[in-house]
Amino acid sequence: MSIPPPVYDPPFNVTRASHAVLSVKDLGKSRAFYVDLIGFIVSHEDKDAIYLRGVAEACHHSLVLRRGDAPQCERVGMRVFTEEDLEKAKAWFDKAGLPAAWVERPYQGRTLHVSDALGAPLEFCATMDLKPRLIVDFEHHHGAVPQRLDHFQLLVPDVRRECEFYMRLGFRLSEYISPDGSDELLFVFLQRKGNPHDIVFAPGAGPRFHHVAFAIPESYLFFYVCDLASNMGFAENIEFGPGRHGPGHALFVYMRDPDGHRIELFNTHYQVMDIENEPVRWDASYAMKRRWQLPARRQWFVEASPFAGVAPRDPPRKGDPMTLERYVAG
Amino acid sequence: MSIPPPVYDPPFNVTRASHAVLSVKDLGKSRAFYVDLIGFIVSHEDKDAIYLRGVAEACHHSLVLRRGDAPQCERVGMRVFTEEDLEKAKAWFDKAGLPAAWVERPYQGRTLHVSDALGAPLEFCATMDLKPRLIVDFEHHHGAVPQRLDHFQLLVPDVRRECEFYMRLGFRLSEYISPDGSDELLFVFLQRKGNPHDIVFAPGAGPRFHHVAFAIPESYLFFYVCDLASNMGFAENIEFGPGRHGPGHALFVYMRDPDGHRIELFNTHYQVMDIENEPVRWDASYAMKRRWQLPARRQWFVEASPFAGVAPRDPPRKGDPMTLERYVAG
Amino acid sequence: MSIPPPVYDPPFNVTRASHAVLSVKDLGKSRAFYVDLIGFIVSHEDKDAIYLRGVAEACHHSLVLRRGDAPQCERVGMRVFTEEDLEKAKAWFDKAGLPAAWVERPYQGRTLHVSDALGAPLEFCATMDLKPRLIVDFEHHHGAVPQRLDHFQLLVPDVRRECEFYMRLGFRLSEYISPDGSDELLFVFLQRKGNPHDIVFAPGAGPRFHHVAFAIPESYLFFYVCDLASNMGFAENIEFGPGRHGPGHALFVYMRDPDGHRIELFNTHYQVMDIENEPVRWDASYAMKRRWQLPARRQWFVEASPFAGVAPRDPPRKGDPMTLERYVAG
Amino acid sequence: MSIPPPVYDPPFNVTRASHAVLSVKDLGKSRAFYVDLIGFIVSHEDKDAIYLRGVAEACHHSLVLRRGDAPQCERVGMRVFTEEDLEKAKAWFDKAGLPAAWVERPYQGRTLHVSDALGAPLEFCATMDLKPRLIVDFEHHHGAVPQRLDHFQLLVPDVRRECEFYMRLGFRLSEYISPDGSDELLFVFLQRKGNPHDIVFAPGAGPRFHHVAFAIPESYLFFYVCDLASNMGFAENIEFGPGRHGPGHALFVYMRDPDGHRIELFNTHYQVMDIENEPVRWDASYAMKRRWQLPARRQWFVEASPFAGVAPRDPPRKGDPMTLERYVAG
Repeated sequence: MSIPPPVYDPPFNVTRASHAVLSVKDLGKSRAFYVDLIGFIVSHEDKDAIYLRGVAEACHHSLVLRRGDAPQCERVGMRVFTEEDLEKAKAWFDKAGLPAAWVERPYQGRTLHVSDALGAPLEFCATMDLKPRLIVDFEHHHGAVPQRLDHFQLLVPDVRRECEFYMRLGFRLSEYISPDGSDELLFVFLQRKGNPHDIVFAPGAGPRFHHVAFAIPESYLFFYVCDLASNMGFAENIEFGPGRHGPGHALFVYMRDPDGHRIELFNTHYQVMDIENEPVRWDASYAMKRRWQLPARRQWFVEASPFAGVAPRDPPRKGDPMTLERYVAG
Repeated sequence: MSIPPPVYDPPFNVTRASHAVLSVKDLGKSRAFYVDLIGFIVSHEDKDAIYLRGVAEACHHSLVLRRGDAPQCERVGMRVFTEEDLEKAKAWFDKAGLPAAWVERPYQGRTLHVSDALGAPLEFCATMDLKPRLIVDFEHHHGAVPQRLDHFQLLVPDVRRECEFYMRLGFRLSEYISPDGSDELLFVFLQRKGNPHDIVFAPGAGPRFHHVAFAIPESYLFFYVCDLASNMGFAENIEFGPGRHGPGHALFVYMRDPDGHRIELFNTHYQVMDIENEPVRWDASYAMKRRWQLPARRQWFVEASPFAGVAPRDPPRKGDPMTLERYVAG
Repeated sequence: MSIPPPVYDPPFNVTRASHAVLSVKDLGKSRAFYVDLIGFIVSHEDKDAIYLRGVAEACHHSLVLRRGDAPQCERVGMRVFTEEDLEKAKAWFDKAGLPAAWVERPYQGRTLHVSDALGAPLEFCATMDLKPRLIVDFEHHHGAVPQRLDHFQLLVPDVRRECEFYMRLGFRLSEYISPDGSDELLFVFLQRKGNPHDIVFAPGAGPRFHHVAFAIPESYLFFYVCDLASNMGFAENIEFGPGRHGPGHALFVYMRDPDGHRIELFNTHYQVMDIENEPVRWDASYAMKRRWQLPARRQWFVEASPFAGVAPRDPPRKGDPMTLERYVAG
Repeated sequence: MSIPPPVYDPPFNVTRASHAVLSVKDLGKSRAFYVDLIGFIVSHEDKDAIYLRGVAEACHHSLVLRRGDAPQCERVGMRVFTEEDLEKAKAWFDKAGLPAAWVERPYQGRTLHVSDALGAPLEFCATMDLKPRLIVDFEHHHGAVPQRLDHFQLLVPDVRRECEFYMRLGFRLSEYISPDGSDELLFVFLQRKGNPHDIVFAPGAGPRFHHVAFAIPESYLFFYVCDLASNMGFAENIEFGPGRHGPGHALFVYMRDPDGHRIELFNTHYQVMDIENEPVRWDASYAMKRRWQLPARRQWFVEASPFAGVAPRDPPRKGDPMTLERYVAG
């Protein structure tokens, strides 16, 4: 098995990871976490939902929290460039025999609901309502000062299949992890927008939503947001980090929201646009090696939000990651 | 006169600002400035040239310094996506009656030399040799830790004409400055790569090369590189800043290299990819207003590097910028 | 003339610069500046006064703003260690024939009002009411996150005389500026608390109050507070900097409050406690040399707050500092 | 049992924690760690020893590494203010029946070797040779840019006894940890120099040397030094952190040097000089609570460097700290 080939002339033009729609049990608690602690800007809120954006975003929302009984991820949202790309996407999914349905979503242009090769629910839209970009409205900056949504990570039982599927749609493989001496695709980092990630697939029971990542601008803010979290009673919500990634290279901290949904805050990373940039391979033994932080707890590897209406399937082989629990046991 | 229309299906696919080729009188002095002070990585050097890249770049070079008697900017380099785009570019320039010639350049794929609407010399290539991306090779990080080339700024006698020219090639106008109550295009910020700038045109005798900008990762490094400059005898090379931009929004510092070529160090700025993002207009009176730093000295407004073999022409009207000299005179 | 000798066994034990008492015309405007912009903590406020402290201070106040018709500095406050030191101070000033009177001041222990050798009004106290130290109460951190008062600077017509006076009280000279090739004391930096400044004397019509300085913890915050100032309409209040000091070595920014009182924000500097640490001499030509920022405007050199009831006297010779106005005139 | 009373008129004037003398097996390996990674300045080195200082220190050394077969801490060094204080110290120790002997040490003034109440070997001196303070010699800054030695921590079998001993010498108790509802002194933080620590005593078999702490100036550098450590093969030397302290309040990271000696890098903390500042009590349950980082591994609590020639004694009761091992076991 080899790396799937890049597709430079995709069937429709996906431009970037756009937004996540999460259901949460208590909007007030979620607001305390996302707005009062992390520093998201509220674009709209009512009794049923809160629409959030980062300070550098002019789009209406990159995170939608909807009140619901069972915390889950409803959809992962991507942008296509034009309305015509939406039409092409509909035709492509229809032809592929995959679900694809037009819907109306507030503050978004016409929206297409689809499922990917493993059933993960996506939505595509070409436009959103515009909101002011608050990047230099410093009096509205707070907490970690989240700038913008960067990427998603999903747990899936068949990483190669997702990799092939998204690469057929024009996603480029920026980095991947394989077992030492093997071509198996363990972890794949796929991108459309010219930096290394828009969507990442990791092995596990799924498809499930592992995390959504937002860029923050200064390493100082990793400490500040953790300190603030501690003062506000959110210390236990800090799951992993601050630390330094191997693949992707950024500083990171992972937090769990009041419903257990996971977000990553990380600082911005490298640009990857040139055609000569081949995917970077990491041997699993090297990628999983400690940079300097201790390993993640087991929960980081196995816990994830279910997708609405999607029953996770187990992968063929169970993983055996180097968890913190294994590390301290020696 | 109105804003030129965006072109979403350009004649060939320019992906990003790529590299600048500058001639300098003394490679040793230039090396002290760019490598020992700013922190560029040397990809190659010999007695005639130094090829430099930022720590986050995997391309062979983003800055080429060539030994020459008269300091000038030889070329501004852009990337196109594929070899096929190069062919399309050749055909387009030929048809437009503009200069276009194939050349060979070291460490680059086939390269096309062209001149833009006002005679500024560009070169396009689709590929370069690859070098290791040193973004987490912290033992090689130094000075301002330049990450990557971001954009160019040129002084030109006819900003609108350049704006129209580059927009026909698919560049999108992210921001522009107009005189209050007028549609004249004073300053235009054009982009291909999804953040607000790849090339910026400002009014003045030209075409001349005003600066090339490199992204740096932490605001701490603005102070550090200035402090280091002072210790290394480069205090007078700091021309303007550190300060905060109006358009573009980034922190910045402008420095002059030993030959007077100007570079900008700035921190990374916002993403702009969505089709609904209309160009942001700034009234000149507002854009030129002090954010918090004092205004730039007159030299920042009028001094620039000549392009090799290009005689600058004066703009029809002389500008009257708010210089530091005017500001302190009250 | 030589440097005055250190006195290791002073007549009473002054421990540190403690607080400034400023009169302001509009407490609301001052509050917007000091609390909403800079980030001071309000220890107490009523219709006549606001008592402020930094986030790392457990003392009740380090800055007192009192409503008054004419903006002036009422007193510069110093701490002595014990009540017994206060008694010794009273006796010493009485014996020296200098004004010294017991007063009651809110939230302070018994307080002694005195005038120094040139008539600058000081107050000494040994204790204040205690308030919570909010150094890790991050939800109360704002703006520049001022930590604590560090030092005062006064303009005086006879720097040597002040230097001799304070050194007799046990202050140690950490640094001083002399004209090249002369022993004249142009600028003197005096300390009691073990870092280089508690009180600084500079030449000029006086005694007048030049500034009070507060420590801030991260260089990032210099940019943040300037950005915030700009957003809040305080851009013109930023007088000088951010920049890097010669003597003292810290990063700094000077701001003028709504009444024109000057504060310095700077980052913390070196420890100086050991008996072998001789005063560091700076030649005027070197100390005044540009590090990397441009020189201060003329107003920074000559404008200062009058002391209540003290008529300034001119120095014997007029200074000729390198102002920004001179610098840009070339 | 109550808190020991402060002594404001001590028998001799200790001014600050000064230096540590450690024996190491391989000076080359130690140099790689302390100089190439952490960024200490070499004041002197020969085949038997390396003398190091921080960039903000004008004293000859704050860390002495001596070649020796068995890694141990030879001495903990303190400064007294004058030579007369040294004489008073000699007399005091003699009278107390504790060891006290004059020795000569390179680059130090006359030096007094003593042992404290539990046998920990100290040395006092009033002066050292002077070296240039490199605080703004940015071209010599590297790694974590250590500024200066701040404090020591020792493990001792009788914390109260050490607390009483050092308080009789004029040390002031800034903070302490007691079991909830008890007056037992579990952890004591003692200071002379006006910030919260010069020497800290924690319970454990001892006296042993737990760590020496150096101040670093920017939170950015915590990440940078960890990243650099990882690149240089020192990832496993990072023992705990980066994290945020409860008592003392600073950010920290603990590292083990190639011989297992522990150093702490932390950012500077609050000033404590005023007589009304009572010791701050922390209930053990609160102090040991997670701020946001995970707990320290067991090794942080129990491993420490032996003092030369001092056999550690066990404390009467074994502690039961919340280690990472206990935490992840749930």
